[in-house]
Amino acid sequence: MRNPLFPGSDSSPPRVLSLTTSTTESKYSEDPKDCVFCKIISGELPCIKIFENEHVLAFLDAAPISRGHSLVIPKTHVTKLTLASSSLVAEIGAVLPKVTNAVIKGVNATDFNVLQNNGQLAGQVVFHLHFHIIPRFKNEDQSADRKVKGRLRLSKEETEGIGSNIRAKL
Amino acid sequence: MRNPLFPGSDSSPPRVLSLTTSTTESKYSEDPKDCVFCKIISGELPCIKIFENEHVLAFLDAAPISRGHSLVIPKTHVTKLTLASSSLVAEIGAVLPKVTNAVIKGVNATDFNVLQNNGQLAGQVVFHLHFHIIPRFKNEDQSADRKVKGRLRLSKEETEGIGSNIRAKL
Repeated sequence: MRNPLFPGSDSSPPRVLSLTTSTTESKYSEDPKDCVFCKIISGELPCIKIFENEHVLAFLDAAPISRGHSLVIPKTHVTKLTLASSSLVAEIGAVLPKVTNAVIKGVNATDFNVLQNNGQLAGQVVFHLHFHIIPRFKNEDQSADRKVKGRLRLSKEETEGIGSNIRAKL
Repeated sequence: MRNPLFPGSDSSPPRVLSLTTSTTESKYSEDPKDCVFCKIISGELPCIKIFENEHVLAFLDAAPISRGHSLVIPKTHVTKLTLASSSLVAEIGAVLPKVTNAVIKGVNATDFNVLQNNGQLAGQVVFHLHFHIIPRFKNEDQSADRKVKGRLRLSKEETEGIGSNIRAKL
């Protein structure tokens, strides 16, 4: 089973978030010129945006493991937390209450995880600092989709509806 | 196997960080008077402190899943991220680069996860906002201790040595 949070790892059982060591080379470059998140920030690649300010962008994860699974990223390219400035991570922290509130209200959840991976041993795949927001639902982890694919299969309309519902709660 | 991050869950396999739904009632109260982290902040309960400022305290997790597993908490009691003020989480964000750098350097790691759980469905057990810092090592996930106990068994001396090494890197 492939875990969309950690695409290099494909041996994780369902209902868990694998943090195992991946031996697979990342398919994403550490070069900012090739960074998919920088391309989302510039508009070169699309996203379903849920929040934006001068320093931070938040959007729906393209391979969600739960409804409302979102990412919060700094607009400045930095690969991991240890290389980020104090003020940049403070800017991210400053928006987390507002964005997480909107995410969980937008998908009628109450509980959620925030997860931030640094380095391949920790499951990082895109080398641009990002915080996952993962709403948790009582029975969703047992869904067939999670067992088969490790992620939800949502239509474009469903995904856009989720984004719209979250933005309405900001 | 008991997972020390999520003591309510005891069905998780080794080498993974369970985010499954727990049906066990938390043994910790949501009442601030009974909050173990508030007691650590006040000094009523001990900890191996690695960092402290006006707003934030960081200390070694008492049931680490890896060497250097630490917690960063606000000194103000708030149960979860969605109930915290923007400025409080900004204060936490502001120290994360410094503290994570010291943690990984103190245990000779490079990679790590930051994990923050909100609500029982997300594995939260202590209802005082906290961010886990979990260094990841190449072979440690396969260790017998992890398989048997889901956590490291470290002596008091080893633990104090880790704390000392981390503080030296601040």
